[in-house]
Amino acid sequence: MTIIITGVAGLIGSNLSTKMVNKGYKVIGLDNLKLGKLDNIKHLIKKKNFIFKKINLDNFENLKKLFKNNIKKNKVSAIWHLAANSDIQKGSKNFDIDYQDTFLTTFNLIKICKIYSINKFYFASSSAIYGDLKNLKLKEDSGPLLPISAYGSSKLSAEAFISCAKESFLKKALIFRFPNVVGRPLTHGVIFDFLKKIKQDPRKLNVLGNGKQKKIYMHVSDLLDAMLFIERKTRKGIHVFNIGPKDKGILVKDIAKKIATRFGKNTKINYEKKKQGWVGDIPSFHYNISKLLRLGFKKKISNSDQAINKCISENK
Amino acid sequence: MTIIITGVAGLIGSNLSTKMVNKGYKVIGLDNLKLGKLDNIKHLIKKKNFIFKKINLDNFENLKKLFKNNIKKNKVSAIWHLAANSDIQKGSKNFDIDYQDTFLTTFNLIKICKIYSINKFYFASSSAIYGDLKNLKLKEDSGPLLPISAYGSSKLSAEAFISCAKESFLKKALIFRFPNVVGRPLTHGVIFDFLKKIKQDPRKLNVLGNGKQKKIYMHVSDLLDAMLFIERKTRKGIHVFNIGPKDKGILVKDIAKKIATRFGKNTKINYEKKKQGWVGDIPSFHYNISKLLRLGFKKKISNSDQAINKCISENK
Repeated sequence: MTIIITGVAGLIGSNLSTKMVNKGYKVIGLDNLKLGKLDNIKHLIKKKNFIFKKINLDNFENLKKLFKNNIKKNKVSAIWHLAANSDIQKGSKNFDIDYQDTFLTTFNLIKICKIYSINKFYFASSSAIYGDLKNLKLKEDSGPLLPISAYGSSKLSAEAFISCAKESFLKKALIFRFPNVVGRPLTHGVIFDFLKKIKQDPRKLNVLGNGKQKKIYMHVSDLLDAMLFIERKTRKGIHVFNIGPKDKGILVKDIAKKIATRFGKNTKINYEKKKQGWVGDIPSFHYNISKLLRLGFKKKISNSDQAINKCISENK
Repeated sequence: MTIIITGVAGLIGSNLSTKMVNKGYKVIGLDNLKLGKLDNIKHLIKKKNFIFKKINLDNFENLKKLFKNNIKKNKVSAIWHLAANSDIQKGSKNFDIDYQDTFLTTFNLIKICKIYSINKFYFASSSAIYGDLKNLKLKEDSGPLLPISAYGSSKLSAEAFISCAKESFLKKALIFRFPNVVGRPLTHGVIFDFLKKIKQDPRKLNVLGNGKQKKIYMHVSDLLDAMLFIERKTRKGIHVFNIGPKDKGILVKDIAKKIATRFGKNTKINYEKKKQGWVGDIPSFHYNISKLLRLGFKKKISNSDQAINKCISENK
């Protein structure tokens, strides 16, 4: 069984690939190496059931060429599409970034599915598609869907096209709506940023926003267990799942303190006055994951605090 | 006050332009004349507060050139974006059509708003963004949003980017979710198709689907009254409104009979066995318009049957 995993050199892609290669799948891993790093998959590259190709998926002609020359000889059974721009902040300043790296990558892969009769498409969507619904506990059918970042808009647009593709040629489509995901290897996000800043100057840590943004975090190992469980337990059709811990999240200032304590040196933590860290940053959200639990998912998901602690200890 | 109206040569665009020109606005009308017809705006072209430009809005370079050379000298206060592919059926066979004509036109206009500080954006969205939510009475916050046509997917994607643009540079955004709209001049849709078929051969009328698709229809005059009312009554921010009649719709076979009776000649109406007229066709939907009524909209909206009758009598 051959599968494609995009964004293979990122946090989730590299961990998913390791798992799938170990299960005996042949994995074709794609990445443009903009945010992902080859170093994250070096343990896979030697294996014979792993192939890596560097490609910008937003270029449809390149993608068609890659399929024609390198991929079509394999019977690809599913695409796990994880590639996206993950610098949400940058994306909201210039919409073209997420339009290309988050939306167009998906749109192009869907068209490839039609051409090559690949009928399973599994997509890494995001809590960002919900926009800022204030204190609403987010369910899969919550609305209205008014994203506030270009990243969230692109993920929602991608979902929309996967949905109509399912109506016309995909047999099975999964939409996983991720929370913030942490683990190793980190490529972006709050812990990545804090670690980078504190390495540059261990005496100070400048936080974006007032630090009171509350966010939920999930460790990549829990996330992958949930994704693979959903894949196993669902049949044809389109299935949307929120994946995340049950808690209400952890404050950015508590993450800052953990990192300053562990890696700093009499570190002074500086906050801004504004609630949002940046335009498009959602100050707080809370997931309802009862759909995942109803499907029978039993594994205890670490709460946000535990996930952060585990991530910090892995990324020294 | 200068405004831009896109899709100006279509059903809604031409009627909106006539209204706005009569109110004293300077209207810059844009259309690619793929589905719209110059004939529909010939009464406007002579007027001095109306300018028409033919353009494909999916080409950003063209659009930038048009603004630089022709538009920027006007202080544009708002864009009413009505242009879209309206051949939903064709769009679901080839996703590129709606991606370009429905989504990309919007994405490009939003980027223009940023460049030229146009801070009001009013958008013709559609019930198609809801997908097929079966018997649910559709409210603005209904979900999950899983469109089943490329048209619906493109409209939802457009909404998503308008939403994040509002977060970052638009001051006011309106999203009108239209039902099926009828009136004069018709450019597409079921009555347009039936009239065309029956002109070709008045003895038979081949209907797509089993005729039991139930759909709601609104006359363009009611639609425009609702749109202008919403524009007047709302302040800054993003506002989403379902616009449509209160009834549950009219069966396609009843429309077929009306047209056969009026224009046919011992016409035999032929139905298919399948429920859907085409892939992406939604067999039945029902709007909840209480948000519009709560805003104070008092005008009695014609029901679907009345709207169809009025449209038939206008389009002989």
